[in-house]
Amino acid sequence: MSGPKDGNPFVDVRFTAEFSNGSKTVEADGFYDGDGIFRVRFMPDRVGTWRYVTKSNRWPLTGHTGSFNVTAATKGNHGPVRVRNTYHFAYADGTPFKQIGTTIYNWIDTPEELQDQTVKTLAASPFNKARMLITQQPTSYQKSFAPPRWPYAGKPPHDWDLTRFNPDFFRHYEQRIAQLRDIGVEADVILFNPYGKWGFETMDAAGDDRYVRYVVARFGAFRNVWWSLANEYDFLRTKTESDWDRIGALVQQCDPYNHLRSIHNGAFIYDHNKSWVTHVSMQNGLAVEEPGRAEMYRDTYRKPVVYDEVKYEGKSPFRWGNLSGQEMVHRFWCGTVAGTYVGHGDYFLVNEDTWTSFGGTLKGESAPRLAFLRKIMEEGPGDGIDPIDRWQDPRVGGKPGDYYLIYFGHEMPASWEFRLYKNGVTAGMKFKVEVIDTWAMTITPVEGEFVAARKDSYDFVDAKGRSVTLPGKPGMAIRIRRLGADGNPAKAETLIDPS
Amino acid sequence: MSGPKDGNPFVDVRFTAEFSNGSKTVEADGFYDGDGIFRVRFMPDRVGTWRYVTKSNRWPLTGHTGSFNVTAATKGNHGPVRVRNTYHFAYADGTPFKQIGTTIYNWIDTPEELQDQTVKTLAASPFNKARMLITQQPTSYQKSFAPPRWPYAGKPPHDWDLTRFNPDFFRHYEQRIAQLRDIGVEADVILFNPYGKWGFETMDAAGDDRYVRYVVARFGAFRNVWWSLANEYDFLRTKTESDWDRIGALVQQCDPYNHLRSIHNGAFIYDHNKSWVTHVSMQNGLAVEEPGRAEMYRDTYRKPVVYDEVKYEGKSPFRWGNLSGQEMVHRFWCGTVAGTYVGHGDYFLVNEDTWTSFGGTLKGESAPRLAFLRKIMEEGPGDGIDPIDRWQDPRVGGKPGDYYLIYFGHEMPASWEFRLYKNGVTAGMKFKVEVIDTWAMTITPVEGEFVAARKDSYDFVDAKGRSVTLPGKPGMAIRIRRLGADGNPAKAETLIDPS
Repeated sequence: MSGPKDGNPFVDVRFTAEFSNGSKTVEADGFYDGDGIFRVRFMPDRVGTWRYVTKSNRWPLTGHTGSFNVTAATKGNHGPVRVRNTYHFAYADGTPFKQIGTTIYNWIDTPEELQDQTVKTLAASPFNKARMLITQQPTSYQKSFAPPRWPYAGKPPHDWDLTRFNPDFFRHYEQRIAQLRDIGVEADVILFNPYGKWGFETMDAAGDDRYVRYVVARFGAFRNVWWSLANEYDFLRTKTESDWDRIGALVQQCDPYNHLRSIHNGAFIYDHNKSWVTHVSMQNGLAVEEPGRAEMYRDTYRKPVVYDEVKYEGKSPFRWGNLSGQEMVHRFWCGTVAGTYVGHGDYFLVNEDTWTSFGGTLKGESAPRLAFLRKIMEEGPGDGIDPIDRWQDPRVGGKPGDYYLIYFGHEMPASWEFRLYKNGVTAGMKFKVEVIDTWAMTITPVEGEFVAARKDSYDFVDAKGRSVTLPGKPGMAIRIRRLGADGNPAKAETLIDPS
Repeated sequence: MSGPKDGNPFVDVRFTAEFSNGSKTVEADGFYDGDGIFRVRFMPDRVGTWRYVTKSNRWPLTGHTGSFNVTAATKGNHGPVRVRNTYHFAYADGTPFKQIGTTIYNWIDTPEELQDQTVKTLAASPFNKARMLITQQPTSYQKSFAPPRWPYAGKPPHDWDLTRFNPDFFRHYEQRIAQLRDIGVEADVILFNPYGKWGFETMDAAGDDRYVRYVVARFGAFRNVWWSLANEYDFLRTKTESDWDRIGALVQQCDPYNHLRSIHNGAFIYDHNKSWVTHVSMQNGLAVEEPGRAEMYRDTYRKPVVYDEVKYEGKSPFRWGNLSGQEMVHRFWCGTVAGTYVGHGDYFLVNEDTWTSFGGTLKGESAPRLAFLRKIMEEGPGDGIDPIDRWQDPRVGGKPGDYYLIYFGHEMPASWEFRLYKNGVTAGMKFKVEVIDTWAMTITPVEGEFVAARKDSYDFVDAKGRSVTLPGKPGMAIRIRRLGADGNPAKAETLIDPS
């Protein structure tokens, strides 16, 4: 809609619209898109006729009404991702979302052809979530390339009008969010970061809140958006924990769609028990070196745990960027059997920077193995993998009685005695066992069936006392699925629609 | 003081006293001790003249005044234990408190001679904190012995007047607390437990609060009391988490001395970020199987972490009571180098029950090794052992530049390259190295000095590239102390007074 251009429409004009369908009414914030244009976006969650009425403190934008018809979601549109079953995720339509994340902090600030290449790389990758900054981070790359768009009116380094946004920056960002949406990638957008020193990190509370409201008003109607309040929040020394709580509550209040909300730590872990936090976004590489550590944050927060930063695959002199491909894959498997989710980074220097900073192409060896893992996750329980015998044998995740995924990590056993914790198991149940090589990406069925027989007050073993032979290599896993009446393992409850 | 006996003095009479010294005034709750006697106890924290005035809703107990002179603490009295340096403990006078806990749930309910034996055992043991229930737990032992005293007027199983306490029970309990105090043992008294089914676990909020106020009024002036709200709080199905918050806040409010407060979990971990919680009381044996897990709760709560239950040493068919002595000692060492504290249990069946249920004598092999560990802890940094290179090498705890304790656990290295993380270290610093056998209880000095030389951007090594030879056994540790100008390691900052 056209509205006033005079003064500063970013701060002078309030503009929202109420959308109604039957008993449900949603008020969505609009935003000024420059050149006298005001927009309001809406993501309906019901089919049928929706009516709207606009509201504003300016007459030209007030009281406009209308209606439109919302049709069923098109193929491949499962809606936004939500928390499911306490520790897991699913799209709004119930389709499980098995998070395999990556990190591309500044990809929006690169030349267009590099951005296009990044989208292409992602489309062919296993990654279904990407963490990305909104405001810029200075890196070595920028010596030869200056970002053409900035979030505020003005110019770098410090000549900004922090009360006027640059609509062109946000329109461009939105195009990229839409492209990610179309290739099935969730955009974990990072509202604040401590890296850029252009002044966006040291605004006052009014400036921060204005920025948050503008971003949420613009991006909120994209179904694939997640809100990450900050990267390494505690390195932003100008904000206190109560600032983050205020900002978290503000996002919750002004986002009508309740997109996922988290905050990522540097040295100090946030109190993820705070009610505005929907899931844990954790930087701690140590925690996914073995599943016993990885499961611990589930218990302290009772929310999904995403290890968004576990160090990066690479050969950096920095020890946070020198994981081997094997170790990166290992960490994903540790997190997976512990009932948590993991994020990837690729820190091999290409030209002047890395995938994790600037996108482009992947150089590491982990991605195909993560695709292999993702397929296994998607064939697994729809409700997610949980520790089977928590605080006892953290190597075993799954769904009691139905599905088990056992990961041996750096152990190199020559065999594994078939043994299942009692929960969900009854004598006589039959299971199919497969041996998985997480690096070679092979799944080798073990001949015959295993039949559950009581061993003691805790465990069941195979009625014939069978063990599973293993090759004595690291990175091996075992998948165990209960056989149905037809002699086949149960299908995954809900398969991700590959479209 | 003598007061009214009519009606029910436990609920009808309010009785407190205000104690004043200069600008400081403390109001302490009194309590009815039966037979028309009302008492109020006070633990002053300043020397000098204190004045008091009593307050009551009954005239005979109102307005009594007086004064007394508080002398300096006698030898061996360091005051109550407080949190120190975020993750650690010290007595009120600054003397570090290095927690080595044990568990004797029902020792108060045994025949007097067995209780006396328990005190004797504790006095000769390394344990300086003991967890103990207030209300009874039914166990096999009670088939041949019925507790002679119960906390309420009435008789078991269910004929209680929950508005009338049994002063004799509490007087006896206090005698035992005083004995523990005199042998240097902190009494971690557990207010509620889910085990007894006599009705004390299912009182309404008014009943719970009356009980809490009575216990705090009676026990609070004992300097060695810690408040544990519950054992396995989540197994008490009649209380919600908000009940525990109410009770925790009540203890905080009515205890003028701010004794340590915690709550111990079963399957669900409490939110120890709640402000009434002074330190983490954790049941999770898995977490102390290696130091990398053990350090994690420090980061989530930023409070001292005490692993009060890590499974018990014993040969029980229950897997929570079948640790070997070696494994119990291992768990203490894992917790120690991770900057946390651990609790012990001894679950060998003697007659009809165990040390951990009923006291008596210790049967396990860990206690002497825990005495050895305690001595090492007491010779260590007064501020406590913290992870040196957190999230990188959890085997190393200490104080940067001054003191390092490295524990290899189940690893059996034949040597260890001298290498210190950069924090606190400068080139040329000299260190004394000792090899510790945690099970054989030997400390073997390594000949000569090690001199710090920069290796890379993270670490220092020995200038001559020396390594430390190790015997290739499990349970080995290394202690490294910086040498002062006199060629000796610095003394521990504050040694525990052994009196």
